[in-house]
Amino acid sequence: MKLKNLVGDRFKERPADCVIDSHAFTVRGGYIKYVANGIYSLYPPMKRITKKIEQIIREEMDAIDGQEVLFPVALPGSLWEESGRFESVGEELLRFRDRNDSQMVLGMTHEEASVQLVREYGQTYTKYPFMIYQIQTKFRDEARPRAGLIRVREFTMKDAYSFHTSQEDLDRYYDICYKAYNRIFQRAGVPEVIAVKSDSGMMGGSVSHEYMLLADAGEDSIVICPECGYRSNMEAAENQTDNTDSREAGKLEKVYTPHCKTIEEVVDFLDVPVENSCKAVMYQKNSNDQYVIVFLRGDYEVNETKLTNYLGEKVHPAVVTAESGIAAGFTGPYQLTADCQVLYDASLKGIEYLTCGANEENYHYKGLNIARDIGEVEYLDLAKIQTGGICPCCGKKTIQVKRGIEVGNIFQLGTKYTQSMNMTYTDADGSIKYPIMGCYGIGVGRLAASVCEARHDDNGPIWPISIAPWQVHLCCMRVDQEACKAAADQLYDALQKAGVEVIYDDRDIRAGAMFADADLLGVPVRVVIGPKNLKNGQFELTTRDKKISKLADLDRAVEEIQAVIQELFAEINAKVED
Amino acid sequence: MKLKNLVGDRFKERPADCVIDSHAFTVRGGYIKYVANGIYSLYPPMKRITKKIEQIIREEMDAIDGQEVLFPVALPGSLWEESGRFESVGEELLRFRDRNDSQMVLGMTHEEASVQLVREYGQTYTKYPFMIYQIQTKFRDEARPRAGLIRVREFTMKDAYSFHTSQEDLDRYYDICYKAYNRIFQRAGVPEVIAVKSDSGMMGGSVSHEYMLLADAGEDSIVICPECGYRSNMEAAENQTDNTDSREAGKLEKVYTPHCKTIEEVVDFLDVPVENSCKAVMYQKNSNDQYVIVFLRGDYEVNETKLTNYLGEKVHPAVVTAESGIAAGFTGPYQLTADCQVLYDASLKGIEYLTCGANEENYHYKGLNIARDIGEVEYLDLAKIQTGGICPCCGKKTIQVKRGIEVGNIFQLGTKYTQSMNMTYTDADGSIKYPIMGCYGIGVGRLAASVCEARHDDNGPIWPISIAPWQVHLCCMRVDQEACKAAADQLYDALQKAGVEVIYDDRDIRAGAMFADADLLGVPVRVVIGPKNLKNGQFELTTRDKKISKLADLDRAVEEIQAVIQELFAEINAKVED
Repeated sequence: MKLKNLVGDRFKERPADCVIDSHAFTVRGGYIKYVANGIYSLYPPMKRITKKIEQIIREEMDAIDGQEVLFPVALPGSLWEESGRFESVGEELLRFRDRNDSQMVLGMTHEEASVQLVREYGQTYTKYPFMIYQIQTKFRDEARPRAGLIRVREFTMKDAYSFHTSQEDLDRYYDICYKAYNRIFQRAGVPEVIAVKSDSGMMGGSVSHEYMLLADAGEDSIVICPECGYRSNMEAAENQTDNTDSREAGKLEKVYTPHCKTIEEVVDFLDVPVENSCKAVMYQKNSNDQYVIVFLRGDYEVNETKLTNYLGEKVHPAVVTAESGIAAGFTGPYQLTADCQVLYDASLKGIEYLTCGANEENYHYKGLNIARDIGEVEYLDLAKIQTGGICPCCGKKTIQVKRGIEVGNIFQLGTKYTQSMNMTYTDADGSIKYPIMGCYGIGVGRLAASVCEARHDDNGPIWPISIAPWQVHLCCMRVDQEACKAAADQLYDALQKAGVEVIYDDRDIRAGAMFADADLLGVPVRVVIGPKNLKNGQFELTTRDKKISKLADLDRAVEEIQAVIQELFAEINAKVED
Repeated sequence: MKLKNLVGDRFKERPADCVIDSHAFTVRGGYIKYVANGIYSLYPPMKRITKKIEQIIREEMDAIDGQEVLFPVALPGSLWEESGRFESVGEELLRFRDRNDSQMVLGMTHEEASVQLVREYGQTYTKYPFMIYQIQTKFRDEARPRAGLIRVREFTMKDAYSFHTSQEDLDRYYDICYKAYNRIFQRAGVPEVIAVKSDSGMMGGSVSHEYMLLADAGEDSIVICPECGYRSNMEAAENQTDNTDSREAGKLEKVYTPHCKTIEEVVDFLDVPVENSCKAVMYQKNSNDQYVIVFLRGDYEVNETKLTNYLGEKVHPAVVTAESGIAAGFTGPYQLTADCQVLYDASLKGIEYLTCGANEENYHYKGLNIARDIGEVEYLDLAKIQTGGICPCCGKKTIQVKRGIEVGNIFQLGTKYTQSMNMTYTDADGSIKYPIMGCYGIGVGRLAASVCEARHDDNGPIWPISIAPWQVHLCCMRVDQEACKAAADQLYDALQKAGVEVIYDDRDIRAGAMFADADLLGVPVRVVIGPKNLKNGQFELTTRDKKISKLADLDRAVEEIQAVIQELFAEINAKVED
């Protein structure tokens, strides 16, 4: 199509509210339009990108025997009551009532709907295994939408649900899906997406993986060991601590530590290594406001997901009142009399000499030895692993913590939904069983934005050819010169006839403005017809990533351009695993 | 794929709640699954059908320079306040609040969203004309969902919006779109879909057309003149009445008509033709309950849409109270003293002698002459046209009223939305103007169900090849016989390699059950491999519509089958207009 007819504006100024580059480029390039907090319309270029991503996903899902279905966006609340999630999920589940005062929800995920769809179908073991998927709009009432299409409230998602009669069969299929996901990201031009072990959170399963695209702008932390290839998200990575070199035991002694409230102030004041300090982090349970105190080594942080998973319920940072009996800033495990649940993180294990709060304003203890002074305690894994930490897999101190964007996830759900929603089948031996489920998601819009985040320069996105809005961006530099315009028009027609997806800029504008627009549209192959080269029967053929930049003969233009397109596809396909 | 793996059940019994055939077949054939009132999930066969319909629509929209975009399902209420529809649309607009208590609505149509998307883009006349469209989920909180996918609350729709700088340009594009719509229905295998003039209702435009698929089960009435080709919906068809043969004037006379409350009882009792009677139909305005009495010839019915359009507001059937001063059952125009708005339908025009209520219990008048006894009144077009009525176009008494299902519509919207939402552009002469809009909708799921309604026999749907879930249904009659199974397996592989969409039934079941399932899936080409024909190296090749039924040689099976597929496509394409 002609660029002058393309709906949407492109502009130079970075909008003030765009913190990350992909957000800025998708706004500046006329890809997305803000409608409401976390809700966007898509302009034609983004719609073209997401359609291509959807098609790649569809092909890969079909290739692993997926059957495409469609679930509703608006679901009856009763369906979510069956699974228990109507109550258990927080405000991100948007609940409303229809004109007949029936309770409804907007689908944010479709485990319930998938079970409802196949509950009658899957009544005998002979029907298994099977996988159904949809590509559909979802709504998740996020508290803090951000970063353009990265974290929105309404989004298009591919979600798949598989049903099995044994854990072995789920494991087998899970592995197939794992590989299909790798292929999807490879085909979308981001082969560097990695699968990391994850915590399954509210989905309620056991084994699960997140697919992460490494990007500094990502909001997730990923744990990587370059030595052994271990990969995990923060929640799932066990934090191990080497306390073998710890200072030897000493006398337990109360010391006056005026105004030392943070662990840094205390260790500074007392001149002990932070590795010999025990800090307290306080929470309250959402359900009943009971205090929960986590003790951990002073240089670690609590991972709240690990804590929530251990407790089996949600918590919030504590508000310490005078009545609580807690001396905020001076809390320690010794002689702690406040009414609260006390947890010890494994980072304290093996330390003979600790500095900690004395549960009294302006006092700390030195020389605490938990085994000696408190007795046997249970050590839990509640701390965040850190860069330089011990790899839970190979044991070396090689851990790196990086930032990433989650672009997909796969879960083993077990029988959580089939059991709660009473979906059963009759097995070969006549016994009644619950099928075992897996589920598999990819956020389409988020993937598009993430690719932009991972593939851009200062001037705009560099779309991989497989998902680019067009394959070729054709620029006519002088529409006012007849020969130049005629050559460009002719090439435009020829490329369209050859089935090449081409966007044609035949506006009478400055070269700088023309190239700025081309950079913002990020089309991988650029073809420039200008008077100078035209005299020699040539044109400029470049790629958006600047790897190819050459003059080519105009009389072989279509072949030359198609060859570059093929080359770009070949580059991507070379990275697609079998 | 293999039928035994297809998710969804097929069964014989017609569900009790299915009034129309397409509803019954789509439930019995494993196409749709009830989730909530007017809300369905789609099983794989229906998803395959709707995907094909969507692709046909997409191609035709792209061919007329449409640019595909995506609007949100959840929209801010403020956007609908801009256009005034947040207030003016009834309960079918689902309103809710998000976690931050912001007013939201579920998109039931996207005029507001389309204006919001292009309001900045379309600021100068050089950007026009353009058309944007989406294929997306919509939610309309229907009071009475019915008939499966025919009238639902959640549905997938293609909606398109065009923007123009002159009425002439809109007229030009409207005509282009009109033809594109014809092609869409022709390509979907229902060339008999007709465009009828329609009332634009709440969309607020002027010229508009509905695309109707004639079907006895349809809930819309369509007015057709076989003589001149006139086509309209009931609301838009002017009712003309020939009263030239009417009885001549007589004396106005009050008569005792005990217990005669209906017009039939009155004319029977007084022995006058119904054509010489004047009946009263009573409404109340929704806004203030004011009474509105429509007088019309006894043998006509009021069309409430015409009435609403005339009044500019909605009405409901009157509840006549004692205080109203209205003598229910005996209301007439002569000496009517009740406080109400009185309207005269044009069917009364030219009648010299009328029987009517006397505004007194058990009394009527004979011999009323409106011009003589009441004076000059304004005659309005408020009655429904009837079969045998006068064609508003050619004037012959040839009108037929038929039933149809509305599968699409196109509207000229004028500046209703651009003006209310303050979308302007600068024209060539520097003046500021409002763009003129058109909008164009097709319900995807309803079209699928309508095709089933129009194309089925007693055993199931007969899908046109262009939208059928598969092209070929392959049946292996004896999987227990090695040769039969081997031949069928081989053909299945060969067809797949040839790119034919084939569903393969290799279950070990009775022939009757196998064919019943095939009938329910409605796949246009059926291939049956059985032992008897196999002995002669042959197989049975039939079409679902029974027009083709022959034996073919197995060694040329793929070519023979492809030839039939081509023939079926050719049949459809022969009816597609340029």
